Amino acid sequence: MNTERHIATAFDRDLEAVQAMTLKMGGLVETAILNAALALESRDEELAEQVRAGDTAIDALENLINTEAARLIALRSPTAGDLRTVLTVMKIAAALERCGDYSKNMAKRTALLARMPPIGSAPGALRRMAKAVQLQLKDALDAYIRRDAELAAEVRLRDLDVDQMYNGLFRELLTHMMEDPRNISACMHLHFIAKNIERMGDHATSIAEQVIYLVTGSAPAEARPKSDPTRAAGGEA
Amino acid sequence: MNTERHIATAFDRDLEAVQAMTLKMGGLVETAILNAALALESRDEELAEQVRAGDTAIDALENLINTEAARLIALRSPTAGDLRTVLTVMKIAAALERCGDYSKNMAKRTALLARMPPIGSAPGALRRMAKAVQLQLKDALDAYIRRDAELAAEVRLRDLDVDQMYNGLFRELLTHMMEDPRNISACMHLHFIAKNIERMGDHATSIAEQVIYLVTGSAPAEARPKSDPTRAAGGEA
Repeated sequence: MNTERHIATAFDRDLEAVQAMTLKMGGLVETAILNAALALESRDEELAEQVRAGDTAIDALENLINTEAARLIALRSPTAGDLRTVLTVMKIAAALERCGDYSKNMAKRTALLARMPPIGSAPGALRRMAKAVQLQLKDALDAYIRRDAELAAEVRLRDLDVDQMYNGLFRELLTHMMEDPRNISACMHLHFIAKNIERMGDHATSIAEQVIYLVTGSAPAEARPKSDPTRAAGGEA
Repeated sequence: MNTERHIATAFDRDLEAVQAMTLKMGGLVETAILNAALALESRDEELAEQVRAGDTAIDALENLINTEAARLIALRSPTAGDLRTVLTVMKIAAALERCGDYSKNMAKRTALLARMPPIGSAPGALRRMAKAVQLQLKDALDAYIRRDAELAAEVRLRDLDVDQMYNGLFRELLTHMMEDPRNISACMHLHFIAKNIERMGDHATSIAEQVIYLVTGSAPAEARPKSDPTRAAGGEA
């Protein structure tokens, strides 16, 4: 009996260490998203370079989380629920790593865009999208830590907002390109950035879905609400 | 002793079952990539619809692989090397699922593009890119099954070809957009498709890197060769 409790405690302690790393990773990724968007809007190449350089720390944390999680599984042999928790942490870390990559990619385009004609209100719209996604990520991680399926469900629904923001921006960019071919290159980059932010929202949503599955034991009932903006815009344009 | 051997055999048998599912999933994804590209080129909306519908089976296989892998870990408590193998299979399944999604996305755009002006040789170039990526995936999975780090390293290097193909197509699309604004919508869709195929190549590369890590115990030494095509093209355009 005593031994069993000791094993349980050791698992909890190890899990908390891995979770702490994941939250730290989440914090770095959130900062990267916001700074990448801010650098783009203010044409701040130095801040963009910071975001690029910072991705190494994010990648290193994912590796550490994977190693520690595997060590935890091998050492503590967790059963059903505990094992699912560890595997969920690994999936969250993988999603965060992708978001870090997208932020780095956004930062890479800042220097290029700084040498092209500015495109209306697009950078401001991108910053608002980035802010919405950062909050989605933050709340998805909070939902994980608190095992809060309701908050997770709310995060999941918020993805529709991000999709709508992307939709609007896509149309705006189309008009800029049609008006003046000299805008095309800049708009292609801005469009990529918009799509990448929208994808980060998808990753936040998938973290929220992992949390719902972890807490309730079943995947969200209804299909995720998903507007298909390029489809609509493409159909009309 | 007898018990130990029995446990080892049970693990091997379970692992083989999960691996078989992963290979089956790989086969479905490879077919989806090729058919999506073919449907696009031949404007075959029926084939595109098949690809879309087929993604459900791919997603279901990923879920099954995750469930079975977790069950395997919980039941057999594999240690270091064996555990790493199971976690690698789960990562491979996640990469394949992403590729399935990209193929579905490509298929979705086929109906739209069929109603827009054709854009030069772009669909043919996309088909060639898709073929190259399908071969990358196939060989990465072969490298996994045969624990062949050399083949995996070769797959990894081939990503440069895909990047170069993407680079060329990106420039071609830019010229079409600049020549005639009525081409812009179609080119935006084709560009997305090209980027998604390029991303599938990245996933094949990451599978190859997992294999290298699994076999040699360390990550590939040199950074992955990576041309940054949009950067170059963007800088000049």
